[in-house]
Amino acid sequence: MTVSRTVELEGHIIDSGTMGMCFGVVMDMGGEFEVEEFEVGRHKHAETYCRMRVMADTEEELRAILHELNQQGATVADPRDATLEAAPEDGVVPVDFYSTTNHPTYVRVDGEYVEVEDVEMDCALIVERAGQEDPQRVGDADENEDGDSTRVYTKVLNAVEKGDLVVTGETGIRVEPPERPRNGGGSFGFMQGGVSSERPSASLIEEIADEMREVRENDGNVLVVCGPAIVHSGGRDALADLVRTGYIDGLSAGNGFAVHDLERDLYGTSLGVDTESLEHPRKGHKHHIYTISEIVRVGGIPAAVDEGIVDEGVMYECVENDVPYVLAGSIRDDGPLPDTITDSIEAQSAIREQAQEADLVLMLSTLLHSVAVGNCLPSTTKTVCVDINPATVTQLLDRGSAQAIGMVTDIGTFIPMLAEELLEE
Amino acid sequence: MTVSRTVELEGHIIDSGTMGMCFGVVMDMGGEFEVEEFEVGRHKHAETYCRMRVMADTEEELRAILHELNQQGATVADPRDATLEAAPEDGVVPVDFYSTTNHPTYVRVDGEYVEVEDVEMDCALIVERAGQEDPQRVGDADENEDGDSTRVYTKVLNAVEKGDLVVTGETGIRVEPPERPRNGGGSFGFMQGGVSSERPSASLIEEIADEMREVRENDGNVLVVCGPAIVHSGGRDALADLVRTGYIDGLSAGNGFAVHDLERDLYGTSLGVDTESLEHPRKGHKHHIYTISEIVRVGGIPAAVDEGIVDEGVMYECVENDVPYVLAGSIRDDGPLPDTITDSIEAQSAIREQAQEADLVLMLSTLLHSVAVGNCLPSTTKTVCVDINPATVTQLLDRGSAQAIGMVTDIGTFIPMLAEELLEE
Amino acid sequence: MTVSRTVELEGHIIDSGTMGMCFGVVMDMGGEFEVEEFEVGRHKHAETYCRMRVMADTEEELRAILHELNQQGATVADPRDATLEAAPEDGVVPVDFYSTTNHPTYVRVDGEYVEVEDVEMDCALIVERAGQEDPQRVGDADENEDGDSTRVYTKVLNAVEKGDLVVTGETGIRVEPPERPRNGGGSFGFMQGGVSSERPSASLIEEIADEMREVRENDGNVLVVCGPAIVHSGGRDALADLVRTGYIDGLSAGNGFAVHDLERDLYGTSLGVDTESLEHPRKGHKHHIYTISEIVRVGGIPAAVDEGIVDEGVMYECVENDVPYVLAGSIRDDGPLPDTITDSIEAQSAIREQAQEADLVLMLSTLLHSVAVGNCLPSTTKTVCVDINPATVTQLLDRGSAQAIGMVTDIGTFIPMLAEELLEE
Amino acid sequence: MTVSRTVELEGHIIDSGTMGMCFGVVMDMGGEFEVEEFEVGRHKHAETYCRMRVMADTEEELRAILHELNQQGATVADPRDATLEAAPEDGVVPVDFYSTTNHPTYVRVDGEYVEVEDVEMDCALIVERAGQEDPQRVGDADENEDGDSTRVYTKVLNAVEKGDLVVTGETGIRVEPPERPRNGGGSFGFMQGGVSSERPSASLIEEIADEMREVRENDGNVLVVCGPAIVHSGGRDALADLVRTGYIDGLSAGNGFAVHDLERDLYGTSLGVDTESLEHPRKGHKHHIYTISEIVRVGGIPAAVDEGIVDEGVMYECVENDVPYVLAGSIRDDGPLPDTITDSIEAQSAIREQAQEADLVLMLSTLLHSVAVGNCLPSTTKTVCVDINPATVTQLLDRGSAQAIGMVTDIGTFIPMLAEELLEE
Repeated sequence: MTVSRTVELEGHIIDSGTMGMCFGVVMDMGGEFEVEEFEVGRHKHAETYCRMRVMADTEEELRAILHELNQQGATVADPRDATLEAAPEDGVVPVDFYSTTNHPTYVRVDGEYVEVEDVEMDCALIVERAGQEDPQRVGDADENEDGDSTRVYTKVLNAVEKGDLVVTGETGIRVEPPERPRNGGGSFGFMQGGVSSERPSASLIEEIADEMREVRENDGNVLVVCGPAIVHSGGRDALADLVRTGYIDGLSAGNGFAVHDLERDLYGTSLGVDTESLEHPRKGHKHHIYTISEIVRVGGIPAAVDEGIVDEGVMYECVENDVPYVLAGSIRDDGPLPDTITDSIEAQSAIREQAQEADLVLMLSTLLHSVAVGNCLPSTTKTVCVDINPATVTQLLDRGSAQAIGMVTDIGTFIPMLAEELLEE
Repeated sequence: MTVSRTVELEGHIIDSGTMGMCFGVVMDMGGEFEVEEFEVGRHKHAETYCRMRVMADTEEELRAILHELNQQGATVADPRDATLEAAPEDGVVPVDFYSTTNHPTYVRVDGEYVEVEDVEMDCALIVERAGQEDPQRVGDADENEDGDSTRVYTKVLNAVEKGDLVVTGETGIRVEPPERPRNGGGSFGFMQGGVSSERPSASLIEEIADEMREVRENDGNVLVVCGPAIVHSGGRDALADLVRTGYIDGLSAGNGFAVHDLERDLYGTSLGVDTESLEHPRKGHKHHIYTISEIVRVGGIPAAVDEGIVDEGVMYECVENDVPYVLAGSIRDDGPLPDTITDSIEAQSAIREQAQEADLVLMLSTLLHSVAVGNCLPSTTKTVCVDINPATVTQLLDRGSAQAIGMVTDIGTFIPMLAEELLEE
Repeated sequence: MTVSRTVELEGHIIDSGTMGMCFGVVMDMGGEFEVEEFEVGRHKHAETYCRMRVMADTEEELRAILHELNQQGATVADPRDATLEAAPEDGVVPVDFYSTTNHPTYVRVDGEYVEVEDVEMDCALIVERAGQEDPQRVGDADENEDGDSTRVYTKVLNAVEKGDLVVTGETGIRVEPPERPRNGGGSFGFMQGGVSSERPSASLIEEIADEMREVRENDGNVLVVCGPAIVHSGGRDALADLVRTGYIDGLSAGNGFAVHDLERDLYGTSLGVDTESLEHPRKGHKHHIYTISEIVRVGGIPAAVDEGIVDEGVMYECVENDVPYVLAGSIRDDGPLPDTITDSIEAQSAIREQAQEADLVLMLSTLLHSVAVGNCLPSTTKTVCVDINPATVTQLLDRGSAQAIGMVTDIGTFIPMLAEELLEE
Repeated sequence: MTVSRTVELEGHIIDSGTMGMCFGVVMDMGGEFEVEEFEVGRHKHAETYCRMRVMADTEEELRAILHELNQQGATVADPRDATLEAAPEDGVVPVDFYSTTNHPTYVRVDGEYVEVEDVEMDCALIVERAGQEDPQRVGDADENEDGDSTRVYTKVLNAVEKGDLVVTGETGIRVEPPERPRNGGGSFGFMQGGVSSERPSASLIEEIADEMREVRENDGNVLVVCGPAIVHSGGRDALADLVRTGYIDGLSAGNGFAVHDLERDLYGTSLGVDTESLEHPRKGHKHHIYTISEIVRVGGIPAAVDEGIVDEGVMYECVENDVPYVLAGSIRDDGPLPDTITDSIEAQSAIREQAQEADLVLMLSTLLHSVAVGNCLPSTTKTVCVDINPATVTQLLDRGSAQAIGMVTDIGTFIPMLAEELLEE
């Protein structure tokens, strides 16, 4: 062990698992540690402090260990500024760039810790110094009230531009991973990573309804991510009710969800198929294509609502109630609708904006769109994942929020029960 | 092709798939067929008749083909009596014994077709001729009103006794596989073999409620097969309501279901754990064991109800409302309760009796017990399979009834919605 | 029943299930049928012929029934030309447009049946009469040897152009759904719709290897559709071997697969992580991003191969052996790589071309990309679906080919065993 | 907070998660804690010591908290003997009985800590003092070398006898939960609770093979738990090879596994069905029943081997190589075989014996039997869980061993690759 560095941790780091994780990281990666100071939090509200020296055989190994420790919230003790290096080309990061977590993060620039804006995982950190002009942001000058202070923000790889000042290494970066809450927890679990299959479904639905009410009372933003199973399983009308009554502030979905929703409207009323009993469960894919064709003809969903072609359903309520929606395209789409964003980078940007505004995200029966939204969320955003497939729920919770409820249930009974809970009181 | 035999089929054999299946069987198994007569059913209510000669290279191959054709409903044309052979020992069948399907079956004995009693799959057929004394059944003489007519009934292997006259070969046996119904179908599907995930959950629940009402109006028998997930997921109270209001006529479950149900009662009221919010989701397996210990102490569930130790829940309502139950033991049980039948053969016999009485079976979130019940059901019994795992639903439908609804949903929302549908009108 | 029409069916329609399905369709959709002529195929190789009159209460109902019957292979008896209607606008089809199946299809134009080119499901049929100039295809004139004969081809909705002559109704269209093969079947199942979990894995792998050998001997085209699990589970090296030895003629995947493959190469050799033992199973998402950054820097995968940055793996072998690949973007991608097609319509077009050339498609552990490829395949293309999730395999088989093998297995053992089977002899 | 008690913890309690879990338990259950002394383990090999006072509002709440803390390894500080109470009746435990974990446990009796024999979870602890005569164990006197020292052992509820001295409360009990290993881990994970789907399958199989070799070299005992899928999927021959070559020391399965194995032998050789190609995939349930009938006729599997009726396969190799097996009955069995233990309590006892002897347990494609075996295992026994269903693997790891490998793979490729790894060197 020829090289070493001292790191510090602070907070409810024992019951949050951080301390144990850090010891484990060092041992797993072939390093050694020596605790130099340890002050345990002696009761519930007291924080623990740990300073330890981490040793490794080579600089490279040490750097790898420090990277992992940093992601757990450890800070390199010796207070120095973060190192910065200019991006060599568009879409290219310096060799040792710092890759973000989704936790609140602070970067030391010119002696001051600056909070990272729009935290999101797997991004580069870009530093824009006070006075320094970001060529890309010139046009936004009037929007940027912090124009004269230093900013640090995330950029996904494809947005990195030649010359961007990118943070490298681990020095001068402080991450705040989620801590076990002290207030008895409340409804949202702490880093469960698992699925509450042992909880009664009805009481979980009540807790989710409580959370939605609270977000609404605080003028917060509820984003719903929707898969087509919502329409098949009979959850559509209840979801439309929730949009109409103002419980939903944004919708993220794919082309397929929107087409199924519109088709149910167009063909439920016009062609005599009873949408309740679904007496003709023939393939009817023709209806699907023709629905798209009709929307193309008038120029999009809002136009279809205006012309009275569409007069109920989730998309209708979104248009009527000014609830913004993003429809992201995929290679398995039919059509697509004119409203669908077919370029995946453009679609990601639109989703990113939705995600950053959300205070509560309901992920309903779609893995693809939920992952896309989840990728853009900070770990502090509350999340509810509902799917009939436990593997989907587990996968979403694993990458996700520190405050998450996972529920393995039938979306066709979940949404009606949630709407009843919220609307019938 | 040196050997051949002529078989006949009759009924709605084209749209029921029987005819196609028979052609396929012959080709798959290396035989040939020659259709000798074919009279197509020219409209919806007309039946189709087919007589064809089946050829094979060896007697053994021919016999194997005939066995498969027989199971599809084909009858060897030349009317002869079934061949009978005495069982050589207890639990042993003759080499070429006939293994039953779960469809209505008729056996030709002394020139007359006798309907098989208690049809069940994978059994031997036992013939008891008029006047012939079945040594085992002497004591039942007064119960047997058909004492002087010939009887044919199924026996599982372990019940076969030395000397029983067992049907062998395929001659003289007529099977009536289910046909596609002519009356527009009704709610229960015909041999779907799949799962109606494209149907709205709420409308499926309505159909199941309709069926339960109809069975009750006709003084029929509804058997419910229960897994412990009913208790965990919060469906217990609604199920108890259905038992109390007379919608359930029998219950089949394992030791685990009963213990969870009793524990929820004992510890929900006595130890202050709030069963709704489950605020202490610690392992609490101690409660599980102690619940069993308490029931052992008083001598069983009925005694626990009598003594007032148990005063709510599914088992309580069964006792109070004289709804018979079978608790079958398994190697993963704790305890078990004194009411649990630990011997698997004995438990199968008890389950067989329940199954034979049932007009409608609800299989709720248990693969093991549902398979055990399903094994004893004729294909004419209506069945509803509900599970959150699609593989479980598919597996149950595959071995099951011709009239089945499969539903992939959350038992914790399904039972409350079903009870609401049945009780609130 | 006030309206009627006569339809005909021909072929091995009993054991292929077509006949039964047609009777069922009419009854399910509220119609009646009257068989006017029926000539059964009296032995294995003889075909069956059926002419029947179909009746319904309204023209609209009759049309819906005829649409379904047509998709099963029934032809409206009275020989008339298909009806054609010009597309009113780009991306818009006439009201009653004919929506394709994925079966071989013939359209009657000017008294002659013309085979549809590039059959694919859920498309419109475009007729281009002899002599008629397709403005879009002017540039391709020299490629089009049939320039002076009438052509019928499929167009997805977004490719439909104002003025295209679109087939409407069901008249003059003949579909040939797959028939049960007469030759004993061979390895590929007929419309199983299920998964061969009862087959020994090793013998299924042998059959797939046999098929691949046969395709290669006939200068056919094997397309492999790849998910990232191939890399995680350890199937990458064996797949690279198959590409190098010429068993793979095209590759379809997403950005994620390619990045994982490249990262394994870049970081397996250069940064000391042992790719075999994966001793440092830390998140390492930084490597993922940096891999993309490196490929961006040099300008794409071929350039990275040229510069020696990438010198092994699946993508490397594709480049070195001129095996064309399509990387389709998705909203969950990091990066993406410069080689990834981010627009979903453009990506679909590239996938469509791959699909149309393929004689055998191996779908390996990816639902999204397999569905996208499957959507473009005619039902006559042989398909192998391999996934550890049975739901994925079932879903792919359900939409798929008439000749398909579904296998629920571990891709990390499947590919090495397949390669051993193909390469070590 | 009116009542309190002091507890101690010692060991690698930070990185093993114990310390954090204990803080969490107290907070979750409404108590408070006050750390009185804390000595952190300053480097990898140093242990941590913590003494803390736990407070609660009522004695009952305090007792509940202490129960949970005890299960995590905390010891009530004040050294007192365990409290003992006689069981009031057969199968009944005292109110406050101590319910065991599956970790090594020590009980203080007469001032000395005695190690618990045959540790198993959810049991009662029975104390038998030196000199005290256990009426039940008289006959075993010569086997019991410790006859004159105090013994503490586990009893499942149904084995508890009136008068047994049962440990109650938490005083005087020390539990040693598993600690994170210091030696770099080795192949078996520490309390992963998850599934290594990110590991290459082939390298995981190598590690399992290494472990099996090591157990064999140390004259250890490998127990294999088998489901019928082993036979269907083609893993049977390789498993038989492993039995023959001495890599398996015991087998635990159900009636179904044995019948499938025997049927494959009887009908693979005698009736011309090719077990490799499975050319006749018809139901063939008749073979299943007849196989049982044949074994019944000769009196069991060993007799069938003796008489030459069975001459290959897994059961054959068990008989020939004196590998003991337990076949446990279930309500879904056909037959059953004479060798099957139909009583579930009796079967559990037989399984318990197998489990206690095992050093390594391979759980292969059976949930029911794996859970039954797992229930009897101490947490120190190494375990490998292999199933194609990730839910099964997760469920088994969750209840299981501290040293476990979970692998989601195809048993039909896993066993052949494992056998190749072990036998071809």
